[in-house]
Amino acid sequence: MKCVVTGGAGFIGSNLVDCLLARGDQVIAYDNLVSGFREFLTDASKHSAFEFVEGDVGDVDLLARTFRGVDMVFHFAANADVRFGTNHPEKDLKQNTIATFNVLEAMRRNAVKRIAFSSTSSVYGEARIIPTPEDAPFPIQTSLYAASKLAGEGLITAYCEGFGFQSWIFRFVSILGARYTHGHVFDFVNKLRANPQELHILGNGLQTKSYMDVSDCVGAILTAVERGKDKVNIFNLGTGDACTVNQSVGWICERLGLAPKLTYSGGERGWIGDIPVIQLDASRVRKLGWQPKYGIRDSVVRTVDWLTANTWALEARK
Amino acid sequence: MKCVVTGGAGFIGSNLVDCLLARGDQVIAYDNLVSGFREFLTDASKHSAFEFVEGDVGDVDLLARTFRGVDMVFHFAANADVRFGTNHPEKDLKQNTIATFNVLEAMRRNAVKRIAFSSTSSVYGEARIIPTPEDAPFPIQTSLYAASKLAGEGLITAYCEGFGFQSWIFRFVSILGARYTHGHVFDFVNKLRANPQELHILGNGLQTKSYMDVSDCVGAILTAVERGKDKVNIFNLGTGDACTVNQSVGWICERLGLAPKLTYSGGERGWIGDIPVIQLDASRVRKLGWQPKYGIRDSVVRTVDWLTANTWALEARK
Repeated sequence: MKCVVTGGAGFIGSNLVDCLLARGDQVIAYDNLVSGFREFLTDASKHSAFEFVEGDVGDVDLLARTFRGVDMVFHFAANADVRFGTNHPEKDLKQNTIATFNVLEAMRRNAVKRIAFSSTSSVYGEARIIPTPEDAPFPIQTSLYAASKLAGEGLITAYCEGFGFQSWIFRFVSILGARYTHGHVFDFVNKLRANPQELHILGNGLQTKSYMDVSDCVGAILTAVERGKDKVNIFNLGTGDACTVNQSVGWICERLGLAPKLTYSGGERGWIGDIPVIQLDASRVRKLGWQPKYGIRDSVVRTVDWLTANTWALEARK
Repeated sequence: MKCVVTGGAGFIGSNLVDCLLARGDQVIAYDNLVSGFREFLTDASKHSAFEFVEGDVGDVDLLARTFRGVDMVFHFAANADVRFGTNHPEKDLKQNTIATFNVLEAMRRNAVKRIAFSSTSSVYGEARIIPTPEDAPFPIQTSLYAASKLAGEGLITAYCEGFGFQSWIFRFVSILGARYTHGHVFDFVNKLRANPQELHILGNGLQTKSYMDVSDCVGAILTAVERGKDKVNIFNLGTGDACTVNQSVGWICERLGLAPKLTYSGGERGWIGDIPVIQLDASRVRKLGWQPKYGIRDSVVRTVDWLTANTWALEARK
């Protein structure tokens, strides 16, 4: 299969590129290198079946040229910053909603009809049902990021009905592991490098979140695309477990051999639009025969280890 | 209260303008007159409390100038063409999703924080639960129109959380009545004027749809905005009933005194993305004390009468 991974130099995208190459696919990584890193494609670049296109998902013509003769698009390019949406509301609209439209139009020009999409558990908003299944009650959006991903889902499914596309939509929990370059583990490790004596935590530390190792995430994606046969295939991707911010902080500090004083901003939410409890019902994807290799604690520890071994990534994001 | 109605020269918008003026509000109708009509604002224009701004919802600066000193925005401007979305996918994205973003940003610039929004029953897709309540299972979009309205809902609710907005979101069934200028009654009356002997129907005639008279629709909106006190207030707007296309055709022909031969394109769906059964659970808005004055048959007949008395509108849309 010949496929394109938008955001292919990013955290999840580059891990996916490696797995697709390993299973024998031809892979084009499409990335504007704004938040992705060429370094993440070092291994991929050694493959003859790999190609890199430096481009923006705002450029529908370049997308269309890139999609010529392609079997499937994994659309993983996105502004993945949930927290700072209110600082620049246009960013989520442009880089997520409109970008997804561009990808779909570029596919349509080339009669490419299969798309996998990185959505988010945040589309459930403050879910009434925990763990949250894919057919949870019609949600209310609480962040511009989630709203932009929901809009992307809507566009993709409308293209499935209107233009005969087939889609695999993944609602991720927060992903951790190798090449992880933003999010709470990244922030905490960075802060502890600057000051190992004290760590400030947004919220009361009791926010309950779910995490999954990127290797499990990519494994689940490939299983779902292989085995999900519907016109629209929607999957929660998570281990099914959750932990508090305090638990996660404990594991990070233990791994780093630190015992900082913890201070809290207080409140149930760490920031505007923060969701106090995220825990997904992941039984649908498990029914396809997939199961995670790593628990949440494992993936936090693996992330700390990767960041410790790759301090250049911590420096690059400062 | 000083308010703006975007799409104020449109079908529902102009009816809303009249009601807001009648209850003593200051009203600015904002419309680009592409699908709206100046004629619909003839009565409104006699009021000293009325103002018309000819403008497009793509023009965020004009929106922002128009919103100065305003208390509330009724955002009703839209591409309301469900059926032809696949002919020009960009239209729904621009005129609905991006336009809603523009309206929200123009509000934010002026610290206007109250918004009512015309969404659609189509956001439920092919609902599993009929009649469909507001908290139906997470839907899958089947038209670009519905996807663009869902994206609008997501943006609005994210602004409620992120910027302290308050919103009233209305998921309409198809609205009928005075100033109705597109949709199945319009099409059938038009076709029967051209050929009273024969009427071609898209689908098998058994599609089951819901309709509401525009006077009831506007009454429900004003009740809901007055009495809905939550940060996000979402209401289905319909009578709660439904009828088949064949029933509706029967009422139209009877009112026109015609007995055409009926032919059918066949199939459960009249066009790509058509939803075979739309019937909403409207109990939430009824609990606020509102109830409809007109049944579905009444509103079909009233629409036929209005079109018969206003053939200029039939001509103008040809």
